Order: sequence, then structure tokens, then C-alpha cells
Amino acid sequence: MNIYFACSITGGREFEGVYQALTAALLADGHEIPTAHLADSTVSELEAVVSPAEVYERDVSWIQAADALLAEVSVPSHGVGYEVGFALNAGKPVLCLYQQGRRLSKMITGNPHPKLTVKPYQDERQAIVLAREFVSKLPGKFS
Amino acid sequence: MNIYFACSITGGREFEGVYQALTAALLADGHEIPTAHLADSTVSELEAVVSPAEVYERDVSWIQAADALLAEVSVPSHGVGYEVGFALNAGKPVLCLYQQGRRLSKMITGNPHPKLTVKPYQDERQAIVLAREFVSKLPGKFS
Repeated sequence: MNIYFACSITGGREFEGVYQALTAALLADGHEIPTAHLADSTVSELEAVVSPAEVYERDVSWIQAADALLAEVSVPSHGVGYEVGFALNAGKPVLCLYQQGRRLSKMITGNPHPKLTVKPYQDERQAIVLAREFVSKLPGKFS
Repeated sequence: MNIYFACSITGGREFEGVYQALTAALLADGHEIPTAHLADSTVSELEAVVSPAEVYERDVSWIQAADALLAEVSVPSHGVGYEVGFALNAGKPVLCLYQQGRRLSKMITGNPHPKLTVKPYQDERQAIVLAREFVSKLPGKFS
């Protein structure tokens, strides 16, 4: 599967370890993650060399080409909120994962879109289990 | 004009003074702001009594009924990012204001949508000037 992974960049990186665990697990399962570098601790330097307009066009193209979007939403982010809406509009299944106890926007928790799933996790291990469960249920594939 | 004002709630309230200055200025000019209470310091208590699903339905209905969306984007927010995309999709003009020097998501700064304007401000006074300028140029009205 081709999974767009979305996470906070400018909003804060305190969950970077979870981002890395999630992308590493899905890559190890053989999935493609065009945004895997967003989990990297050098992401700000990596992204600094690309213009905002190029990042925007690249990211929306990746969402359009993806089978689904996986977002880690423990840390607020304009970009991730925008991408969740963009993916749902494009008909993509979306899973939003967050650390149990974090306060989330009601634009995410109250969104009735049938392709949106929002789930808390206790730890990295459970986050990976939930992500794999989501990917395994995507239509038309058995991976 | 009917202006949907969007700002961070769960993401952090350090710019609450700017939110209040912006909404007070536009209300004083005679505009309607269905979300004016989001600038209030008691917003969390006000919103706690409404279910997430009700907030979502209420907010997207307000965006659909609005002439434009004004977002203060200095503090990251999933909800505001989602609302910016929702408003643009609905064909609404959007102004994103942020304090000069704040780092913004490239999904906002790199977004080429012709109805999106993104501007920095130095202080509350300038933020109000920019908001009034935006509202004065909205199509079909002279307020």
C-alpha cells in the first residue's frame, strides 16, 4: 500500500519517536511511505531547501496518489489538519492516532466522515498495532 | 458581512488578546461573527458543553453561510488548518494572519489557491488594519 504519513513539523516534534516507530513499522511491512522523511529528526533542514509552493504541490500530489492517510495528531498542526480534510475530500481513508489523554480539535473528533477513524494509543507498540490494523483493512489489498 | 473567525482553542491561547482585538474591531464595524465567542477567555468552558459532533456540524454550517473566513494562524491548530481547507473548497475568500516571525506550515504558505491570502502583522493594530482591508475588498459589499 501507498500510505501518506502526516505529522507535526513546525508545530512541535515531541512525538518524533512515535512518528519514527510508525513509519519504520509500515516500511518494514513493505508499504510505501512517500513522506517517511517527515519522521526524521533532520526534517526541518531537509524541508528548508524546498520552497513552500513546491512542498504544497508535492504533498497534495502524494495524497492524491496514496491509498490512505495516516496522521499522528497528538501535537497541533495547521498542515496536518489541512491534509486530513484534503485526503477525506479526495475519498481517502484516514486514520488519526493520538496519545491517550491529549486534547484534540473537535473538527477531528466530531467529524462524521465515514472514511475517518480517530483512535487513542497508550504507547508506541499500540500505535503500531492500530496503524497495521487500519492498513490491513484498506479496500482491495491484503497486505 | 458574515465573517467566520478561526483561531486555536486546544492548541494554545497565547494569542487570545489578538483574537479579541480582531473580533471586537469587526463587530464594531457592524459585521456578523458567528464564532466571536472563540476569542473569549472562557471558550473552553463554553465549548465543553457542546458535543464534538455538534461543534463540527455547527462550524461547517457557519463556514458555508459565511462570506469569508479570517484565521489567526500564529499558534498551530488542527481545527484551523482543517477549516482553512474547508472554506477554500467552499469557494470562500480566506485571510490567514500571523505574528511576524512565527513559523507557518507550508500547507498554508505554499498553497496557491487564488482565494487565499496570508499576511504577517507586527502588532494588534496592524492585524486589525489587515483584517479590515480584507473585508472591505470582499465581493459584492461595500462595508
